Amino acid sequence: MIQRLDVAVIGTGNWGTTLALVLARGGRNVTLFGRNQAEVEQLQAAGENSRFLPGQRFPANLGLAFEPALAAKAQVILLAVPSKTIRSNALQLAPLLAPDTIVLSCAKGIETGSLETMSEVLAEALSTHPRGLIGTLSGPNIANEIAQGLPSTTVVALSDDQAGQRAQSLLTTTLMRIYRSSDVIGVELGGALKNIVALGAGICDGMGLGDNAKAAFITRGLAEMTRLGMARGAHPLTFAGLAGLGDLIATCASPHSRNRRLGEALARGQSLETALAQLGQVAEGVNTTATARQLAQHYNVELPIADELYRVLFEGKSPQQAGLDLMQRDPKNELAGLQGLFA
Amino acid sequence: MIQRLDVAVIGTGNWGTTLALVLARGGRNVTLFGRNQAEVEQLQAAGENSRFLPGQRFPANLGLAFEPALAAKAQVILLAVPSKTIRSNALQLAPLLAPDTIVLSCAKGIETGSLETMSEVLAEALSTHPRGLIGTLSGPNIANEIAQGLPSTTVVALSDDQAGQRAQSLLTTTLMRIYRSSDVIGVELGGALKNIVALGAGICDGMGLGDNAKAAFITRGLAEMTRLGMARGAHPLTFAGLAGLGDLIATCASPHSRNRRLGEALARGQSLETALAQLGQVAEGVNTTATARQLAQHYNVELPIADELYRVLFEGKSPQQAGLDLMQRDPKNELAGLQGLFA
Repeated sequence: MIQRLDVAVIGTGNWGTTLALVLARGGRNVTLFGRNQAEVEQLQAAGENSRFLPGQRFPANLGLAFEPALAAKAQVILLAVPSKTIRSNALQLAPLLAPDTIVLSCAKGIETGSLETMSEVLAEALSTHPRGLIGTLSGPNIANEIAQGLPSTTVVALSDDQAGQRAQSLLTTTLMRIYRSSDVIGVELGGALKNIVALGAGICDGMGLGDNAKAAFITRGLAEMTRLGMARGAHPLTFAGLAGLGDLIATCASPHSRNRRLGEALARGQSLETALAQLGQVAEGVNTTATARQLAQHYNVELPIADELYRVLFEGKSPQQAGLDLMQRDPKNELAGLQGLFA
Repeated sequence: MIQRLDVAVIGTGNWGTTLALVLARGGRNVTLFGRNQAEVEQLQAAGENSRFLPGQRFPANLGLAFEPALAAKAQVILLAVPSKTIRSNALQLAPLLAPDTIVLSCAKGIETGSLETMSEVLAEALSTHPRGLIGTLSGPNIANEIAQGLPSTTVVALSDDQAGQRAQSLLTTTLMRIYRSSDVIGVELGGALKNIVALGAGICDGMGLGDNAKAAFITRGLAEMTRLGMARGAHPLTFAGLAGLGDLIATCASPHSRNRRLGEALARGQSLETALAQLGQVAEGVNTTATARQLAQHYNVELPIADELYRVLFEGKSPQQAGLDLMQRDPKNELAGLQGLFA
């Protein structure tokens, strides 16, 4: 009989591989799941993920596999796949899940069409699984730093706090400190929406606007994220925490952030197609700009930053003109849409 | 008869000179005030502030003077002097002020001994002047960037909103966008307390902890600033705005921030004395760490970050050990002390 896994990490990209590495180094019984046997054999032969994390050798205790039936029985499943494929991954797992398995999305996006967050997509795909066991893992988590052994914090959000405590103890290691939250929608919207602001912050960097202007932009961006989050029922303070502000600051600062780098390339005059091709990986912020805007229209929330970014990404507006138009908005209402929060 | 000045900037340091430059470039009738005739003649002869902003030539319309009687009649006085000298500067102006002059502190600190903010110090020193005309100017304002002509935003806080509107129209230029606030204590505590966090963020940088850990530290730092601010009657959302979060992000990111650089030097093992000597300018965060702690004791507010930083600055604790001790605190209460804000 096969021992039950502590953690199954599904997805061999940058983030999935990093999560598997940090957990294996922390002594967890963890297996990294690839798409098929060929991929697993390639990873096994290389002893590392040569494409995304060259030089970060797999510890001896890190398992490699591809069979969904093995993943589905783990204590915790971490789904570290792009947001657009998470539904099909979950559907594959659905008939195989152990009844007490915790399923956490590690993708940061909003599904095109349905406008659902990742946990909502998972709840649909895993319709017979307890809702309290479906949540998200999100925080200031630049993967490359964590893979290199630097310390980090992240948030696990589950509506069932007992499940949250179980996930916390299974996922915490000396170098990755896990905080719990019960605000699943807030934590996942923080992670998803911050990619929009990171794209814009990259444009600020690419235009050479300096740290003052970039800080002002990030501050306004967080207010915009909070407004949309509240409309979807998130707790506003979640956005002031690690999965909101924390993730936003790390992403806007890091040279590794794909969304930030894409913004820089756009500011240098590259087309979206060229910039994405050079990136060679998904930049979730592009799609999230479109989906967040649709959400905002539905809930009647103003998103001036996402609106301008949409025009840059999809309608050919110059980043320079978009920046000017943002600067010329009414300066008086710094707290508009948030004031009502306080008694 | 001498024409009344739009703006008198008192203080020829980095920030005072920058404010005078940006206002003169924006076409304002502005004069920069030095300490005495000798200093003014030196600045006039050089045509620039060679010590702090070499190469940034004074525009022809920028006045240079030292006579308090001239400054005291301006529409707006900007006091850009270190926090420890602002009281004596104000006492010199007190008998000379025009009754409608707006006096704004541009210093970011808490007075040793009295534990008063700068506007409270000004209100004492200018005891017959209307309280509604005494306030602060604070925001994400790395001086060097602004002197170089990069765009920025800042906040003018005055309890009298009519005075606020007058200051806003006198100080706004194409490149410096002024927001108004009536939360004077919140805006000035945001500016003062963020220097503590910037010192700590510099330590994170100096220890090479990476963008994830630094972002987590900044996030916790903002929560700590907000808790102390609320105890002093500030509006919590002020800390989520430009004078709180915005200033914090800019300072923690900028290579120019003196407080951040001091933290880096401490992390490399330099003593406080050596590091301050090499800096050659005031780092307000050192003193603010001590005064904020006293304030917190008075109001019974927990400041774990300031506490650890105090031990590093004044009690010889190693930054490494302080970091470890901060990481080992109870991880469960991300929102402790803030939750009560929301209905």
